Amino acid sequence: MTCIIHGLHPVHEALKIHPSPVKGIIVSRGRNHRSLEEILRLAEERRIPIRWADRNDLTRMAKTASHQGIVAQMYEFEYAEPADIVQRWKETGEKAFLLIVDGVEDPQNLGGLIRTANAFGVHGVFIPKDRATAITPVVIKASVGAAFYTPIARVTNIVSCLEFLKESGVWILGAEAEAERPIYDCDLDLDLGIVIGSEGRGIRALVRKKCDFLASIPLCGEITSLNASVAGGLVMYEVSRRRLPGKGSHDQVGHTGKRNS
Amino acid sequence: MTCIIHGLHPVHEALKIHPSPVKGIIVSRGRNHRSLEEILRLAEERRIPIRWADRNDLTRMAKTASHQGIVAQMYEFEYAEPADIVQRWKETGEKAFLLIVDGVEDPQNLGGLIRTANAFGVHGVFIPKDRATAITPVVIKASVGAAFYTPIARVTNIVSCLEFLKESGVWILGAEAEAERPIYDCDLDLDLGIVIGSEGRGIRALVRKKCDFLASIPLCGEITSLNASVAGGLVMYEVSRRRLPGKGSHDQVGHTGKRNS
Repeated sequence: MTCIIHGLHPVHEALKIHPSPVKGIIVSRGRNHRSLEEILRLAEERRIPIRWADRNDLTRMAKTASHQGIVAQMYEFEYAEPADIVQRWKETGEKAFLLIVDGVEDPQNLGGLIRTANAFGVHGVFIPKDRATAITPVVIKASVGAAFYTPIARVTNIVSCLEFLKESGVWILGAEAEAERPIYDCDLDLDLGIVIGSEGRGIRALVRKKCDFLASIPLCGEITSLNASVAGGLVMYEVSRRRLPGKGSHDQVGHTGKRNS
Repeated sequence: MTCIIHGLHPVHEALKIHPSPVKGIIVSRGRNHRSLEEILRLAEERRIPIRWADRNDLTRMAKTASHQGIVAQMYEFEYAEPADIVQRWKETGEKAFLLIVDGVEDPQNLGGLIRTANAFGVHGVFIPKDRATAITPVVIKASVGAAFYTPIARVTNIVSCLEFLKESGVWILGAEAEAERPIYDCDLDLDLGIVIGSEGRGIRALVRKKCDFLASIPLCGEITSLNASVAGGLVMYEVSRRRLPGKGSHDQVGHTGKRNS
C-alpha cells in the first residue's frame, strides 16, 4: 500500500525528516507557489521528485478536497519494534516516558495523542493491532508529522506488551476517570508507561488489571469526561511538568502586577 | 434557523438539560431501540415529541451519515450576554475562571474547548463574531452538549470584551507558545480570563497587547506546537489543579509500590 498524506503542514513536516519518508510530492496545477516555497526548496534539496497534476487528481489521491493543493506519496509507514523503543529510551538515560493507547478508534484523537506525545518528549507509543486505528494518512496528518519522529509499535496484544514493559523496569499508570487518586497526587518520578483507554469504554478490564496504579483527572462540571486526546495530553503534561527541574515549583513567580491597559 | 444536532451522546446531553433546548427528536426507522431507551424515556418524561423517519431523511437533516440513527431539532442556540457571565461568576463566590477563544476556526477544536471548559468548571466562554466559528451543530456535538451548560457570549470585538472583563476585576492571561514564563510558574490564584489563540496564528497582536501576562507550555519535541483544544485543556487543567485545596501538593502520596503481575 502506498501511503498518501496531504496538506501544507504535514507534507512540510514529512520532508524535514532525514532520511525522508517521502517518495514524491504532487502539486496542484495553478497553485499559488508562495506558501509552497519552503516545501519545494526542501524537496529539491533532498532530490525528491516533484510533479504537477490537476486539483481533481489530488482530491482523488487524498480522498478529500482539503489537501491545500499538495500531497506527498510516502514510503509505507514503518512501525517500530517494542524492544527498539525500550532500547531507544534506555540510550537517552532519561526516566522512561512511554504511551500505550488502548483502542482509540478516532484517527483525529490518535493523531492528536501522537502529536502531544512528541511535543512532550515521549520515547515511544504502543498501539494495538485490533480495535484501534492503524497509522493511516489521516492519523499522520492529525499528528502534524509527529508519527515520523516518535517511534510507534503496533502490538498484537496490549497485555503482553505491558508485561514486556514491566519486565524492562517500567511502571504502568492507567488514566481512568473513576480512579480515586488524582494524577497530581501520584509519584510520577518513575520509569513510566501511561495507558490511555478508548473514548466511551476507557481501559479494558484485562489491561487495567496489569496497571500498577490508576489515576484520574478531577473534574467538576456537568460534563464528566474529557476527549481522549485532551485527557492523554493532560497526563503527559503533568508527567513533563513534574520531571524537569524547577517545574511546577510552588515558589511561584507572580505576574508583574502591572496592568496593560 | 433551526439547529439540528445528532448522535447518541449529544442528543442525550441536550435532553438532560432543564428546561430542554430540544424541540423534538427524530429516530431512524428500524433503529435498534436498546441504546435509545434512556433517550426515549427522557423525551417522554419531558413531553418532547418523538417521530420516526427514514435513515436517509436523518442524513439529510444532519448533513452527515454519522448521526447514529438519532437527531434532535433544537430551539435556536442562545448566546449569553458578557454581563450575564460576569454576574453568574460573581454569584458563585469563586475566583473568576473565564475562557476567551480568539479565532479558533475548527469546530472540533472549539467544541473540544467548550467541553473541557465545562468539565473544569469555567464560568463562561467568549468567542468573537468574526474570524471564528459560531456555535453550530458540529460545535455542539464536539462539546458533547457542554455548550448547553456553560454560557457562551459571542462578542463583536474581543479587545473591547477584554477591557470590559478587566474593568470587572478580571486578570487576562494569554496562552502563547513563545512566552518566556511557563504556565506552572504563573500566579493563577486570581480572577482569571484565559485567552486561547487560533491554531497557526495564535493570539492576534491587538488582543495580546490587552493581556496582563503571557504564559507558555514548555515543550521539548520536534513538534513545537499543540492542538488548540489540547493547549487550552492544559491551561484549564493547570488553573483547576492549582486552585482547589490540596491540589498538586508536593507531598506526593506514592503509588502502593506493589506490582500487579
